[in-house]
Parts: sequence; C-alpha cells; structure tokens
Amino acid sequence: MVKYASDCMMKSCFDGYKRYVNPYVVDFLKSIELDIVFNKAEGCYIFDSNNTAYLDFVSGFGAMTLGHNHPELIKKMKNILDFSMPNINPWGIVPDTALLAEKLVGYTKRKMEKVYFASSGSEAVESALKFALACTGRKAFIAINNGFHGLTLTATALAGNCIWKKRLPEFSVEVDHVDINDVNKIEELFLKKSYAGIIIEPVQGSSGMGIWHSEYFKEVARLAKKHKVMLILDEVMTGLGRTGMWFAYQKILPELSPDIIVISKGLTGGLIPISAVLMTNKVYTGMFGGKAMGGGHGATFSGNALGIACALATLNIIENDKLIDNVDVVSHYINKKLLELKSNGFPIGNISIIGLSVGFEVIFMDSKKYLTAASEVCLKLTKNKVFTTLAPHNHHYIRLTPPLNTSLHDVDNFINALERSMYV
Amino acid sequence: MVKYASDCMMKSCFDGYKRYVNPYVVDFLKSIELDIVFNKAEGCYIFDSNNTAYLDFVSGFGAMTLGHNHPELIKKMKNILDFSMPNINPWGIVPDTALLAEKLVGYTKRKMEKVYFASSGSEAVESALKFALACTGRKAFIAINNGFHGLTLTATALAGNCIWKKRLPEFSVEVDHVDINDVNKIEELFLKKSYAGIIIEPVQGSSGMGIWHSEYFKEVARLAKKHKVMLILDEVMTGLGRTGMWFAYQKILPELSPDIIVISKGLTGGLIPISAVLMTNKVYTGMFGGKAMGGGHGATFSGNALGIACALATLNIIENDKLIDNVDVVSHYINKKLLELKSNGFPIGNISIIGLSVGFEVIFMDSKKYLTAASEVCLKLTKNKVFTTLAPHNHHYIRLTPPLNTSLHDVDNFINALERSMYV
Repeated sequence: MVKYASDCMMKSCFDGYKRYVNPYVVDFLKSIELDIVFNKAEGCYIFDSNNTAYLDFVSGFGAMTLGHNHPELIKKMKNILDFSMPNINPWGIVPDTALLAEKLVGYTKRKMEKVYFASSGSEAVESALKFALACTGRKAFIAINNGFHGLTLTATALAGNCIWKKRLPEFSVEVDHVDINDVNKIEELFLKKSYAGIIIEPVQGSSGMGIWHSEYFKEVARLAKKHKVMLILDEVMTGLGRTGMWFAYQKILPELSPDIIVISKGLTGGLIPISAVLMTNKVYTGMFGGKAMGGGHGATFSGNALGIACALATLNIIENDKLIDNVDVVSHYINKKLLELKSNGFPIGNISIIGLSVGFEVIFMDSKKYLTAASEVCLKLTKNKVFTTLAPHNHHYIRLTPPLNTSLHDVDNFINALERSMYV
Repeated sequence: MVKYASDCMMKSCFDGYKRYVNPYVVDFLKSIELDIVFNKAEGCYIFDSNNTAYLDFVSGFGAMTLGHNHPELIKKMKNILDFSMPNINPWGIVPDTALLAEKLVGYTKRKMEKVYFASSGSEAVESALKFALACTGRKAFIAINNGFHGLTLTATALAGNCIWKKRLPEFSVEVDHVDINDVNKIEELFLKKSYAGIIIEPVQGSSGMGIWHSEYFKEVARLAKKHKVMLILDEVMTGLGRTGMWFAYQKILPELSPDIIVISKGLTGGLIPISAVLMTNKVYTGMFGGKAMGGGHGATFSGNALGIACALATLNIIENDKLIDNVDVVSHYINKKLLELKSNGFPIGNISIIGLSVGFEVIFMDSKKYLTAASEVCLKLTKNKVFTTLAPHNHHYIRLTPPLNTSLHDVDNFINALERSMYV
C-alpha cells in the first residue's frame, strides 16, 4: 500500500494547518505529542506512519457506523463513480432517492411518510424547525438543557448555555430550555405559550448520554399532541442502529409517534455529508403543499446522486450483516466490563449506556492512586493508543460511540487501556 | 457501459419519489414529459436511456465547474478511496486541509488568512454571520434585496421577500434589506444602527445576475470599514473561477478587502458537499481566539478527508487546464451570440453577463410570432433538449451557469436551441 502522506509532507502540513486553519488544534496536538502522521484507518483502528494502531472509539462522533473504510462500502462507492450518473440534475430526479426514502420510512414502520434530504445535521435540524414554523404559524421552541443540535445560528440557540454560545449576543430566536425528563416544566410552558415545536434527543450525546425515561417521554408526546406542538426528534447521533434499534425512540418507547425525525451522521457511514428530515404527510403538506411551494425549501446538494447512493450502500450493509443485532451484544459486554472495573475500585461513577452510545462518569477520589478527572483519563487513553472524547456539556463524562460492527475483542482492548489509564 | 438504472426501475422510482419524497416535482416532470431516465452525464451533457444528449447549462446551479463526471476528478476520487485514510479523525488533522487552505488564501492574494471548512453553502453563510456576531458584539445585519444565501433559518431571513419565506412567521433575526448598489440607503442605515455585518453577493444569481457596480462596491467597502461593519462576500455561486477570476470581487474591484468570503458550490466540482469561510486573522481571533475557544465552532463533517481531497483535485484541474482563461473567451462568445439574436428581433431584453454567470431577460412582445415569457422559453428549451433555469427572484430572466470548460461548440448548440425555443 502506497502511503497517502509522507512524514515530511505531514510536518509541513502541521505548519500550514497552524497558519491557515486552526493554530489551537495544532498547539494542543503538539502539547500531547499527537502531532504525528495518521494515514490509514480500518474498522475502529487508525494507524500512524509506523503502522501502530490506535483504537478509535469516537468513530467520527458516531458517524462511522461501519468503522473506517469498510471494504464493501469503498468498493461500492468506486463502482458508483464509474456509472457516470448526473450528480445533480436540475430537470430530473435521482432514482435511488426513492429507494432510500422508502427504506427510511420503512424503518419508522411508516409512521414517517416523507423524506427531505440535506447535507449536514445542522441543515436538517434547521429544516425541521422551519417545517414546524410553517405548519404551526407559531414562533417559539422548547429545547432541552445540555442538548446539541448543530452549530448553524438557530441550531446553536437550541443548545443550553455552553462554549458554543460564549461569544455570541443573546439570540433573538425564541427558545425556552428545560431539563431532560422535566415534564412538569414542559407542561407549565405549554400552558403559558404557543410553541411551534419541542426538539428532543432521545439520548443526549453531548451530556454524556443522558437518556429520556420512557414514562416522561410518553408524557411529553401526550402533552405535545394536546397542545398541537410539533414533536421533533433529533436522532442525528442515535439514528440508524446505534442504540440497537433503527431509532433510539424505538428502544425507549416503541409506540411513540413523533412529527419529525432528523438523522445524519451514520447515514453514509461517515463518508459523505448527508442528512435527512423524516416527517408525516401532514408536516410535508404544511411546508410544501400548495401552488409553487414544492420548491419552497431546498439546496444545491440536496439529494445528490453520490450521497444518496452512499447512504443506500451503507444501510444495505447494516441490514445484510445484521449489524444492529451486534449492537446489543457488544453493549452488554461494555456495560459488564465497566461495572467490573467499578466494583474493583476504579473511579467510575454513573454509567449511561444504550446500545453503542456509551457515557461514563470519572469520579473524583481522595486517594492519589487513581487519576481522577475525566479529561486526564481521556488524555492518558491517547497515550495508551485509544481515542475517546469528553462529553462537551459534561466534562466529568467520557463518551464512546464505536462502530456498530465493533467486536468483543475491540472492547477488551478498550477496557485494558482504560484500566491502565486510570492509574497515575 | 452498464446502465445504472433500468427503465423499469426508473418507472417505479418515479412512483416512489412521488410517494416518499416530492409529489410536486414528479407531477411537474410528468406534465412536461420529462419523467424519463437520465442515467449518464459527461461535461455539460446529460443523457437519457436512449443516449439522447441534453445540454445542461445549469450544471448543478453552478456547482459543476468541471462539468459532469470529469474523468480526471473521478479517477482521483477512486484513487483517494483506495488510500484508506481516516475520513474523520477526532485526535488528528487531515493533512490536505492545510494545502487546500493555503491555496484558497493564495487565490485572495493573502487578503484572507484563515479558512474554516463546512459542508454546505448555508452552513458556511451561517458560520460567517456567527463570526461577525462574535467579533462585533452587535446583532443586526444588512442584506441585499433579491439575494440568496441558502435556506437554513437565518440564511433564509437574509433573502428578500420571496417564496422561501412565504409560510414562515416574521423572522426575529434583525436583517434590514436594501437594493443592490443603493449606497445612500446603506449609509443612512449605518448611521442609524450598529450592524454586525453586511452580506453581499458581488453577482446575484437569484436575481438573474445583478452585478454590483464597482464604484458603489468601493463605497460600500469604505462605509463598512468606517462604521466597523464586517463586509461579508457570498461567493458561493461566483467563487473559484466562474467570473473569469478566482473571485467575482476581483473582476469588479480587485483592490477590495472584505473581512469574510464564503464559498461552496464549485469547490468540489459539484461532487461532494463542502464549503469554506475565508477570513482575516482578526475575524478568526474574534471567534476562535482565547482559552478553549479553538473548538467554539465546528461540525462532524467539517474538513473531512474525502471532501478536502476532492476540493484539492478540482482546483488542481482548474489550474492545470487553465480553465479560468477559457471563461472569458466563452463569455464573450455567449454575449456576442445573444446580442446577435436580440438585434435579429428575438425577444431578448437586458443581458447581464460576467464570465460564465449569465442572465438574460425575455421581454414581452405584442407580436404573437415569439414566445414571450421567460418561463415558456425555459420549458420550450427542455423540449429542444437544453436545461436552463429561471432566476428565482426574477421570473423574466433565464439563468445560465455552464461549466468553466464549456466550448464554443456547446454555446452554438445552446444558441440554436434558444432560437428555436423563441418561435411559437
């Protein structure tokens, strides 16, 4: 295999990255001695130029549901490129779009009826909010504290107080925030104001995997219906198998009927940016129905042929390889192993796990025997050649989003490294 | 060549598209007998299943700067896929990002100093607005009537009154609108209110190619500087060669020094969604400078390896094939041919052309000899196997954004079809 980047080229690229892209990232990587060449990746491993493997349990922040460079997906993509299809056709449709949309609708057991495609999670979230505004004629939204819905302006406004809002003036889009599972507060707000929508992540990736309780989830849905507030599920991280079902809401409360579901990350296995808004026909008509409104929303790259083909290929692999069945097996094993560490005295606090969305708290200890802060453990893990991240809204939690095809052996590698990373 | 889609498959895809994606598009395509199979595209031609060529002068709304499926780009992409690079690396950088950023900075003659990458034009516009908010601490923006900056919520608010706002309540983001070239009104507004930024398309694609006058452009820049208002150029359609220079502002007023430039469409030749925000170091520091703010904005797919590699490959082709030199040659030829038609009595009014951004008015005539409305001509053009679009903000204008490598022969094909399409 020819290497993509030489060490020498990589060195000058760090200089260039510092100068033209992001000096802070380069300084940080240098400070932890990670300013090195990574030029190959397979499954949940990323390799440096000496072919040393790093276990990547971040996996594109959950986007790489098939792991890096799944051979079947790569082969399919090259094949698609050979077909010379029109990638964007101003006076035609991309045939695969219908197949992909039907598949996605099927995954919701046809509760959702139409699909709008966009390029990024943020774009899809903004589209969902727009559809709710158009359908209800109302202006305000409820969002959940410690949530994350992307970083375009209105999407940023949905996040609770956090670094992403730090430099920005008070947003004028009307968003009221409540805590996860706080249905009393939600009812109180519903009684006071007419909301266009409430946007909920069934599992909050940014809080370290805060999970909605099924009873509260049910109650929110009931209240939203009663007050004619659109229930928008943000399943950008959790959708398409990550929780052991096609959607997280199906794991928590299978009978739920949301108005809109937003998905993105895993849709192309992390290869090409694509996102989708799944919705009922009622929502669709509220936005697109009527004279000349069929083009009332869209974008240049919406439903481009390459992205659609990549998504179809990804979902076919998940189906054919029965990867969702693997999720629960691996999930139980991770949970068991983390509990073992905890009972052996390692500084692990709360464990929040649903499928392969994993968050665990690193607790502060009096003893100096263990590293105590999650960020220290996270950095120590990189020394032990394992990539994880902190939950951005909760720096006491380490967050894992490994691929759906993670093996028990990969988990053993992770647990061994974690054990070593918790000793000083 | 094996066909990607069979006729039979295509038929069921139209049914599926109608049911699951967009019934209005399918009904419309059926009504004009364009519900047919298009499964191959090369250069500025799209082919139906009988291998009949349609001239595509929309070219992905200007995104396909190299035309459809440029063989060198496709080959390069397949090659990149073989390298098995990590597409998203949570603890590393994508080396090509530095090369791409340096190239883009170079195209501005280093007036811009840093580059932030995103996935879509809308996302990049929203990022630019956010950076202006963060840098100035102000809240309001000025945008130009008949502009288009994408359809996420705040980007939609920037557009003047139009179909894209029809169903939506009054936006709460503070945007004041002025007409193109109306510097007096801009000065008046600047004196009344503190604006974070003014966002300008040097060439307004959606109005049928309204072009800023260099003197007014200069005056806006002077006023913006005086009032410390960020000058944001939206070059999503015009950037990267379309006007015969790397950026449209360089064609109109080479000495201009904007604070931020937004690009997207042509960056990957229309193959993979990617966008970029080019900015001065001052803007960069205003947003990202200071403790822990290096990650104050971002997205999962920001700067993914495949998109970055595709962009680099696209720009290398534009450079190596000297495509920008071709733009002026073809532009002059189109202009000459349109003027000839006009002087021969065809119902062409104003012609607005800068490089390969072309808009021309179809005027109403008393005589019944000619088709009179632009939309009729646009539809007739499809019958004559040529794809164009109407300017969304001005339905009297037909809009052309052919690839940078369009030949004079392609233009002859267009002009012949246009001539035939203007007779009843």
